[in-house]
Amino acid sequence: MTQSLPSWTDGAARRAIVDFVAAVTTPGGPDFAPAPERIAVFDNDGTLWCEQPLQVQVLFSHDRASAMAMADPSLAQRQPFKAFLEHDLATIHALGKQGVFEFAFAIHAGMSVDAFQDEVRQWMASARHPRLERPYAQTVYQPQLELLAYLRENGFKTFIVSGGGVDFMRAFAEQVYGVPPEQVIGSSVQLELREAGGHFELMKLAQLGSFDDRAVKPANIGLHIGRRPILAFGNSDGDQAMLRYTLDGPGRRLALLVHHDDDVRESAYDRDFKLSPLTDTLDRAAEFGIQVVSVKDDWAQVFPPAR
Amino acid sequence: MTQSLPSWTDGAARRAIVDFVAAVTTPGGPDFAPAPERIAVFDNDGTLWCEQPLQVQVLFSHDRASAMAMADPSLAQRQPFKAFLEHDLATIHALGKQGVFEFAFAIHAGMSVDAFQDEVRQWMASARHPRLERPYAQTVYQPQLELLAYLRENGFKTFIVSGGGVDFMRAFAEQVYGVPPEQVIGSSVQLELREAGGHFELMKLAQLGSFDDRAVKPANIGLHIGRRPILAFGNSDGDQAMLRYTLDGPGRRLALLVHHDDDVRESAYDRDFKLSPLTDTLDRAAEFGIQVVSVKDDWAQVFPPAR
Repeated sequence: MTQSLPSWTDGAARRAIVDFVAAVTTPGGPDFAPAPERIAVFDNDGTLWCEQPLQVQVLFSHDRASAMAMADPSLAQRQPFKAFLEHDLATIHALGKQGVFEFAFAIHAGMSVDAFQDEVRQWMASARHPRLERPYAQTVYQPQLELLAYLRENGFKTFIVSGGGVDFMRAFAEQVYGVPPEQVIGSSVQLELREAGGHFELMKLAQLGSFDDRAVKPANIGLHIGRRPILAFGNSDGDQAMLRYTLDGPGRRLALLVHHDDDVRESAYDRDFKLSPLTDTLDRAAEFGIQVVSVKDDWAQVFPPAR
Repeated sequence: MTQSLPSWTDGAARRAIVDFVAAVTTPGGPDFAPAPERIAVFDNDGTLWCEQPLQVQVLFSHDRASAMAMADPSLAQRQPFKAFLEHDLATIHALGKQGVFEFAFAIHAGMSVDAFQDEVRQWMASARHPRLERPYAQTVYQPQLELLAYLRENGFKTFIVSGGGVDFMRAFAEQVYGVPPEQVIGSSVQLELREAGGHFELMKLAQLGSFDDRAVKPANIGLHIGRRPILAFGNSDGDQAMLRYTLDGPGRRLALLVHHDDDVRESAYDRDFKLSPLTDTLDRAAEFGIQVVSVKDDWAQVFPPAR
């Protein structure tokens, strides 16, 4: 146990995790949860990996928007293409989280899921984070990689429940987080089975399936998992419903909230990040019983060693 | 290996299964599939348990339709209530599979998922199949229970992908089939998170989420699993898209189709079962590379011993 979670400092957050896991895995104990009940859900952007200056999927979409504008120059004068192409953060932020993601989804409509994921993997293999100067697969939070592994060692099934596109995340979640595709839940577009010459492919349509944020997160947990998690981890007001839904079940529960307060090692932001603000959930964390995790104080290391 | 699948006779179907599993689990062999790729999907009604004279969920819905008609007698004169209350199979069949299931979903709108599943469990504990004279949990096919267990012993993850309601199946799938809720995919209604006094519940709305049949099955596999199965098992034309989508992937694949041809031990039906016919898929099974499983010839035993 003492070797677990080496990138977590010995503070209230780490103690809350270790105590919780000990309680729910002690057979015969008052808080014991059988393994099938050990469902843990994690938001992705800002919880498992860096979401500054923009969510990674938004950065990824920039390349396709550029290619589309090359093919049809009139697009470059049209919003929101113009804002994306000019890196106009103020206009992008004004679209809000759902608006930005819907743009990202829309420009990939008409592709097959397989072709889309090939494109994601190629991009991930070559693109580098502008500030952190490393591949995006290394902009994940080291303490969270340790936590995911620690939970799985203790019989938990770990899920991602994110506003990000489900097909996008599944292109790397197994390799980067050890979370298989069937345990990744996200925003989605409608898929359609297309047959051509006896071959079958799933095509991404322009229609939104669901935007997996706020109260939709518990609804999608209901659709995909079918039981209430006992641990939830988020970082924004978009996660509040999932955190409180998790805490409201019977037996012992744990909800955690990353607070990005470290401008030296990462970025310090909360209510000012318009795309995905953290306001009410931070102000009322104690009232709701949510454990706040300070990047500055609770994480001894933020990112994996650069390779 | 020889003790596996004792309720399967030593014929082409059993050999196809055993050969397939040996091939994909032999490390270094040409057909080896790493464990995460070993995804097996099963239809439910008519594939894992009996769907005659009607799908179990339709029979379950009869009790609620009766209660609603007691509260509002005018309902008893209105279709499709009238047909359900009078067990008018011809009218019920004429509604088609989606029509019948949409009625079953509609009469449970407004309940929480938890309350609905409590009702399902209570009904399952007391109701008995009209012909087989046993609880519905014992109208499952013994050879399929053995197959599910055999696949899991060989590193497969077993999923249900059914036109039946996902909340309905999850009320018993773990206990009856050993398939946890997060591996059950089905038709669904929209869910909504409702808060009352700080408590959170998922409510079943009247709007359909998806009707999980035909081409929607592969689309829902894409949404929920995110990779193509390597084994699929169905019993009707509603499963054809899933079977062919499975077979079309790279590497070795297996698709199986139950043909209900045993009127002595169960029911003999295929193209005449209007709610869920088997026509084209049976006629073209060889062309598609689908292994037909005859209840009469391939299953030494159909149901578990009555308890």
